[in-house]
Amino acid sequence: MKKVLLSILFPLAINSFAQQNDSVAVSKIYSEALSSDVAMNNLKYLCKNIGNRICGSPQLQTAIEWSAKTLKNLGADTVYLQEVMVHHWVHDSKKDEAKIISKICGKTSVNIIALGESIGTGKKGMTSEVVEVKSFDELKQLGKKGVEGKIVFYNRPMNRAPFDPFDNYGDLIRYRVNGAIEAARLGAVAIILRSISFQNSIYPHTGIMRYRDTVVKIPAIAICTRDADILSKELKEEPNLKFYFKTICEQLPEVKSYNVIGEIRGSENPNNIICVGGHIDSWDTGEGANDDGIGCIQSMEAIRIFKILGIKPKNTIRAVMFLDEEISQRGGKKYAEIAKQKNEKHVVAIESDEGAALPIGFSINATQEKYDRINQLCGKFFKDYELFKIYKSKGGGVDIRPLAEQGSVLFGLQVNSQKYFDYQHAGSDVFESINLRELQLGSAAMTSVIYLIDLYGL
Amino acid sequence: MKKVLLSILFPLAINSFAQQNDSVAVSKIYSEALSSDVAMNNLKYLCKNIGNRICGSPQLQTAIEWSAKTLKNLGADTVYLQEVMVHHWVHDSKKDEAKIISKICGKTSVNIIALGESIGTGKKGMTSEVVEVKSFDELKQLGKKGVEGKIVFYNRPMNRAPFDPFDNYGDLIRYRVNGAIEAARLGAVAIILRSISFQNSIYPHTGIMRYRDTVVKIPAIAICTRDADILSKELKEEPNLKFYFKTICEQLPEVKSYNVIGEIRGSENPNNIICVGGHIDSWDTGEGANDDGIGCIQSMEAIRIFKILGIKPKNTIRAVMFLDEEISQRGGKKYAEIAKQKNEKHVVAIESDEGAALPIGFSINATQEKYDRINQLCGKFFKDYELFKIYKSKGGGVDIRPLAEQGSVLFGLQVNSQKYFDYQHAGSDVFESINLRELQLGSAAMTSVIYLIDLYGL
Repeated sequence: MKKVLLSILFPLAINSFAQQNDSVAVSKIYSEALSSDVAMNNLKYLCKNIGNRICGSPQLQTAIEWSAKTLKNLGADTVYLQEVMVHHWVHDSKKDEAKIISKICGKTSVNIIALGESIGTGKKGMTSEVVEVKSFDELKQLGKKGVEGKIVFYNRPMNRAPFDPFDNYGDLIRYRVNGAIEAARLGAVAIILRSISFQNSIYPHTGIMRYRDTVVKIPAIAICTRDADILSKELKEEPNLKFYFKTICEQLPEVKSYNVIGEIRGSENPNNIICVGGHIDSWDTGEGANDDGIGCIQSMEAIRIFKILGIKPKNTIRAVMFLDEEISQRGGKKYAEIAKQKNEKHVVAIESDEGAALPIGFSINATQEKYDRINQLCGKFFKDYELFKIYKSKGGGVDIRPLAEQGSVLFGLQVNSQKYFDYQHAGSDVFESINLRELQLGSAAMTSVIYLIDLYGL
Repeated sequence: MKKVLLSILFPLAINSFAQQNDSVAVSKIYSEALSSDVAMNNLKYLCKNIGNRICGSPQLQTAIEWSAKTLKNLGADTVYLQEVMVHHWVHDSKKDEAKIISKICGKTSVNIIALGESIGTGKKGMTSEVVEVKSFDELKQLGKKGVEGKIVFYNRPMNRAPFDPFDNYGDLIRYRVNGAIEAARLGAVAIILRSISFQNSIYPHTGIMRYRDTVVKIPAIAICTRDADILSKELKEEPNLKFYFKTICEQLPEVKSYNVIGEIRGSENPNNIICVGGHIDSWDTGEGANDDGIGCIQSMEAIRIFKILGIKPKNTIRAVMFLDEEISQRGGKKYAEIAKQKNEKHVVAIESDEGAALPIGFSINATQEKYDRINQLCGKFFKDYELFKIYKSKGGGVDIRPLAEQGSVLFGLQVNSQKYFDYQHAGSDVFESINLRELQLGSAAMTSVIYLIDLYGL
């Protein structure tokens, strides 16, 4: 009965007059986002004055304090921190070093970075022969005899042929995450991973790796694609060349850190939450501009735009800078846990964590009924602003995913992914790689979704 | 009767089996485009070894010869040149110089470039007071008294607010094209144009300007946006400051130059042409990478991909490097003129001249009937490869536009235009600004259109 009533009411709630007004409102949101320098200045500060910010680092603590202050300045009426315990892996990427030592070619310095949470080599570094494989199958074929005492070099290039760059990411990431375990089982002393990128690049790409308690821990590094090709070529000529590398890493006890939350309390339903977020932590290279400085800045922009346009939300609009996306996603888990404790109702959660390329749509994790309702509310806006890629998905960003269990609809901002692997977890992920308008269009798209859903409900 | 027959035949021609095969073929085209390094290497050669190539320049002649040779190497069975007379405006942009001369701030060097086809100042340069206006209306209000003997500074910023960056281009370009005429009417001695760009940039943006026979010719330059803001600020403090600049320009007699054409002759209908092109000339700054090196490279790729995949076209597939897009579009006009003389039937012409951002669709200049037919043929392909912006238009690139009169359907490759004004006609339009995959996706999209239309006809 209730359902029938709702379907009768919809045409009244979103009639053509409302749609006309909505178009004007959305247009104002876009104009404000595109005309303002605030997002760019904030991103520049985060990238250039604070820099990269891995969990447990002093930079992350600075970023947390800066985010809280900035959210307040932008117009959040309530700003608070949410305690989260995080890993404290310490690695000074400036001290990473590596050389190919060849009888034919001499010594060649190559660019490497320790994989996330890897053990280090200690100050003396490690020197050993290298065995190159393209896959776990090849590794198994070599067996203990071919691997023992050597460094395993997973030289598995990204396949450039598919239209979707993510097509072979699932395959490749297995080598980053489990490569050390599989190599150590056969007696390898370390692993070198070819960076996951299409580019012929000088930047090594890091990312999380894992150990298993029952298998010996060995150091794991990524090598940039340019140098992976050099290493591979020299190995063909001289299979018993040596590889030297040094990484200084240490796993310290867990530390206290914080999700940052800034909100505009709802005028009608303050306990109904519309949440928009990115993650404030990054890897320990580059400046965490795409991953995920921009997601944080865009979420802050939602607060700023509501405030500056004088939009008084019915529900509470909350910008969240999630913690610890890169390592254990504890920020997102803690946030959902506390939301449940407080009996908050998350109507919608939106995350931006795909980098600052051109926004092309949203993945939406919702029931069919709500998905249809969203398209009814937002269809015209999606069309007008070329957000053509609207689709149902089990996903949403990993930080907001735990909210799905509480019935929240999840939106993931989708952007042109063709350049994603140019920057992911690499020294190239800096402020200069961001196009301001693409960043701003993301803020505008997310703020418009929030505006329409706040106004009409789901 | 014929129409009825056609509509009966269509379902046979493009049944689901054919569509399955088409999907495989299009996927092969995309894989080849995305996996190959040829496009990148060719673009690098054009940008780095040849450089920018304004009409009449020796670099353009080199680019013409290189294009012809490259088309042959990529597999064109017939390569030839088509004579076109072009303007020969000579300007050494390295000698452009300018300074704000202020009593308060001293001398400040600023970045300028002569507008296209402007007269120069001569070796001694020009020094004068500056009067800043935002519009022709403001200029008229000042009248002769306010303008005579001064340099008019059109400081009209791009409006960042609209979603479509081209929204105010039509308005702004009037000042570049007619600014010198309107200022000279009131006795101005020169004009400075604020560069047409969203960015706070160090690069001045050039482009064509015009004179009128009845109005005195005065030098015209563009100033970069960063320095336009400096000049404007200093003018507010010191309205009678002086501005010095020097540009060495000369209009020489017209010279002979060439469209470059490379084709794979059709196996069934060699006199039916499917043409794909870009323009080989550029402005005299940067490297003409986006404008329009990539259009040329993508057109060459169509030939290469057909050849390497062993596709034997029914119709003649022709890649054209058009001449003189930037000044008088004589290359496109001459090409259409000769096509008419030879009684060639251009089924379709496709142009890429929007820069190498993410391809998002095609503008299509066609009758409704042919437009529907194209969507029937290509609809699945458009959808699979996220070419969502398919629309009817009177346009197509300016080089192919004259072919519309001969009944040719025109396709213009549409890309994400958010970054267009970061590079247009500026020193920033260099090889490094191109993302390889975005370039390759353009080649793949155009080649796929050619493949489907060649196979099924329009």
